[in-house]
Formats: sequence, C-alpha cells, structure tokens
Amino acid sequence: MYDTLIVGMGPAGMSAGIYAKRAGLKTIMLEKNAPGGLINITNLVDNYLGFDNITGPDLALKMFEHVKNNEVEYKIEEVKHIKKESDHFLVETNKNKYTTKTIILAGGRSPKKAPIEDRLKNIKINRCSICDAPLFKNKDVLVIGGGNSAFEEGIYLSDFAKNLTIVTRHEVKADIELLETAKKRNNIKIIENEEVTDITEENNKYKIKLKNQELTVDGIFSYIGYSPSTEYLSNLSIIEDNGYIKVKNTETKIPGIYACGDIIEKEVYQIITASSEGAEAALKAKKYISNQETIS
Amino acid sequence: MYDTLIVGMGPAGMSAGIYAKRAGLKTIMLEKNAPGGLINITNLVDNYLGFDNITGPDLALKMFEHVKNNEVEYKIEEVKHIKKESDHFLVETNKNKYTTKTIILAGGRSPKKAPIEDRLKNIKINRCSICDAPLFKNKDVLVIGGGNSAFEEGIYLSDFAKNLTIVTRHEVKADIELLETAKKRNNIKIIENEEVTDITEENNKYKIKLKNQELTVDGIFSYIGYSPSTEYLSNLSIIEDNGYIKVKNTETKIPGIYACGDIIEKEVYQIITASSEGAEAALKAKKYISNQETIS
Repeated sequence: MYDTLIVGMGPAGMSAGIYAKRAGLKTIMLEKNAPGGLINITNLVDNYLGFDNITGPDLALKMFEHVKNNEVEYKIEEVKHIKKESDHFLVETNKNKYTTKTIILAGGRSPKKAPIEDRLKNIKINRCSICDAPLFKNKDVLVIGGGNSAFEEGIYLSDFAKNLTIVTRHEVKADIELLETAKKRNNIKIIENEEVTDITEENNKYKIKLKNQELTVDGIFSYIGYSPSTEYLSNLSIIEDNGYIKVKNTETKIPGIYACGDIIEKEVYQIITASSEGAEAALKAKKYISNQETIS
Repeated sequence: MYDTLIVGMGPAGMSAGIYAKRAGLKTIMLEKNAPGGLINITNLVDNYLGFDNITGPDLALKMFEHVKNNEVEYKIEEVKHIKKESDHFLVETNKNKYTTKTIILAGGRSPKKAPIEDRLKNIKINRCSICDAPLFKNKDVLVIGGGNSAFEEGIYLSDFAKNLTIVTRHEVKADIELLETAKKRNNIKIIENEEVTDITEENNKYKIKLKNQELTVDGIFSYIGYSPSTEYLSNLSIIEDNGYIKVKNTETKIPGIYACGDIIEKEVYQIITASSEGAEAALKAKKYISNQETIS
C-alpha cells in the first residue's frame, strides 16, 4: 500500500513527488510518456524563476534529476482506471495494480491541433503567448481559433504585435466582453468563417493561405483549445463539463484525491504555478493521512 | 509613471518582476536589504523543483541573475508610504518618490526570535519543518512555541522524530484540535509555563536548560511566529488582525494592488508557492492595466 500515488510526471507531478517523499510518504509516480510533460515540447523556458533561457528538455531533465536524487519511486505506465475502496484506492495501469491511501492527479493536458498542423510539421506554431509574446514585438501575428483562449491570448499578444489577425473557422465563440475588447483594439482584425488551408515559410515570414484571401505574418499562434488527460477518471465524477477538474486549493471533491497542474480549472497555466500546486497537493495528502491515522 | 512597482525582491517579488517585464510592463522592483529575502538565511534548499541541494544564497543568486538578464529595473530602497491617487499610486521610499499604475506587495515576513536566540548566535535554530524534518528521522527534537504554528509544525515533525518536546512560556494557545492531535501522539511531550534559559552544544547534541529541568535533543525548531513586513501599509486598510494581507488569487481589496509570497494569509509558505504567486500577481497587474486602457 502506497501513501500516495502520483499520476503524471510533468512539473506538477514531479514537484508533488519531491514534497511527498520528503514528507515521509511512501510515494510512487506513474507517467505514460517521458518525464517533463509539455516542457519536453517547449523550445525555451524563460520565466521559471532561477533558470534563465533554458531549453524545455533541459529543464525537464533538471527536474527529473532532482526527483531521482530524492529517490522517488517512478514507473513508465499508463493509468487505466481508479476505483475507490473503503479506506483506500485501487489504481490499475496497463501493467500493474496498486493500492494507495491518496492520489495526486497531475496528468496535464494536450493542445488540440488544427487539422492543417499535421500536414505542416515544419512550420513553427506557438502556443504560449505569455512565454513568446516578447519575440513578436512590432511584428505581424496570426492567431488561429475563435474561443475564449484565442481571444484572451490574442488580446495579450496585441500589446506586443503590430498587427494581429484572429482567424476562426466558425463564428466567434468567445465571451462578448472579450470580443468587445478585441474590437476596440485598432491592431486586431477578426476574420470569421475562414480557414487556413496552407502555410509556406520564406525568409522568416509565413505566407498564410485562407480559402478566400492571403496574409503574410511573422508568427503563428494556435489556440483551438486543450484536451485535459482525464479519460481514465470518467467513473469518479470529478470532471467538469469543460473536461477539467475543479479543485479548491488542490482538493477535489473526493477526500484523498488531489489534483494539480494543467489538469485543473484555473487562471494561470504556467510551469511555476504547476510546480507550486504539486507541492501543495503533496502537503495536503500528508495532512490527510496524518489525520486519518489520528482518528483511527 | 511605472506600470507596476514591486515591493520586495524575495522569490515572489523576483518572479513577479520577470513576468511583469516579459508582459511588456514598465516595471521597477524595490528591496530594502539583499535580493533573495529569507532564502539568504536558509542553509540548504532541497524542494524547489529543478534545484537539488542548493544553498539558500546560491539559489538567491540564480534568481537574481535571472532577473538581471531580463533587465528588470531594481533599486535598493525602503518603501515608507503608499498613497492612492485618482488613477495611480504614489510610493515614497527613503530616497525617492515613484508613481505607478499598479503595485505588487511581496515584502515577505521575518521570523520572531525567542529572547534567548540573541544570546546564542552559534546554536542552529531550524524554522522550516517541511524543509528540514528529514534530517531528524528517529532523533529527539525540541520545538519552542505554544501557538498554532508550533503545534502544526510539531505534529509534522513528530512523524519523523523519535521524541518531540514542545516547550511554551505560557499555556498552549494552539487550537483545541491541534492540541488534541498532539496529545494523541505517543512521541509528543508538551511542557507549559516553562522557558529555555540556556542551550549548549556538544557532539552534535544540544543540552537544553529550562527553569526547572533539562533536556538533551538533536535538533531545535522555533515557532514563536512571524512578523509580516507591512508597517508602511497601515494607511491602506488591507492588513488583517494577524498582520497578514488577505488576497483572492493575489488580488487585495484595492484594485491595482496585488500581494504575493509570505506577506499573504495562506496555507503553504514555500519558495515554490511564493514564486508561483509572484507570476500570477504580475499577470493580474498586466490584465488590470490592459482593461483600464480599453475603458479609457
């Protein structure tokens, strides 16, 4: 029986692992891909305090080494099912079964990809405006998407960009306040019911072919949403309609199950926030176990 | 006029500085002592994800270098007064006056010291059980203090320690639940109305002289509370009775003023949580300014 089982080894999961182990909990971390999560597909990380201008994979490696030096047990396995038993949880993976007193869900999310992206693997599509906006100061930028995140990120980018074009395949689905804000910005242009059909790169410029027109831009951001990795949790009724897990300070509505990082519903999705939530979730798990032991 | 002025250059303030600068805000950070805050007086940091077993001052330096490489403006000055004007704030330091659209309070807090500590400068007093508990596995530990933090930290430590003695000068002031939990632990002993009068060290053991008895322990933790650094904020009515600032996701009750790190009322006081809150505060400040500009 483990004290805590952590699903996912991105920054949230690894930070949870270190805090849990140091809190004296018998801890195991499970990851279906490579430790690091989305950092592994991030070019440069510039805003995780203490690491200046480090590549994503290098930062992932530093974090993983930190975990290994703390001798936190981990396995590369995919969690398939979680079941609540009387006073513990049963976790099934593609290879094993585990029993654990608490669970920390840190499985993150994956960016949804526009259909065009699979065809254009050599074109750089950005997904983090907070991270990459400084690269596009006074430049022309394309944002693909028509929902809240496309507009939130587009408005953020428009403080940097010279001209910003938001292209959506349908009508705008973003909240009216966001749409109004975007419309007031002179440098934002919104194109509805259009679709990117091809992108070619030449001299660091991108030629964007839409069905009925063409654009030339310096950078492309895509915000057609994310898919939180929560399929295996469907039986637990902790998933909101939007696919995310709702928490209060990392506590889900099931006592003993915590969630942190990109899998939760929140305002800021950054490496530093995920790492912080991981630490908090581990300390919550520790307290929960401590309380259970005092009661029994 | 600055977009944001950050008070304090501990992890919260420096993380805020990097995020604010990268968000395109005209940013200044003010610090009265040395960049790094309490990390500078921390021996080893083991739980800030990505840095394994780094000394406090070394970590502070890494963070400060990160800030400098991002060319965030900073000055070593002490903030004396903050005044809200119609659409901005006026900040007075011991040397200058600044105007700014938003303020991020990240001034941290200082541990209160037991009177004995000034006399015994060579005795190592620990203050972070989450950080240092693993060092005291199966060892005898003294906790000085009788309030909630002494009991919370004492209970946490008692999962590691062989024997743990809590000594308080008065009666126990901790909440009844904490007291009950402590009493149920066989390895916790509570001594009320006693006082540490002398400590001597020999062969890594500490001989603790109380008024009426003596103890020998392997480690000493002191939890007689903290003083948040909030004196200069007294005119703003954002301080709770306990001296901390109450926030909702880093927002204080004054629009345009944010707070993060050890200065706020919260559950977990760690470097990683402070750094995360700093990032969030900066993004909030950015959004606030962006909204103001759209309105006007």
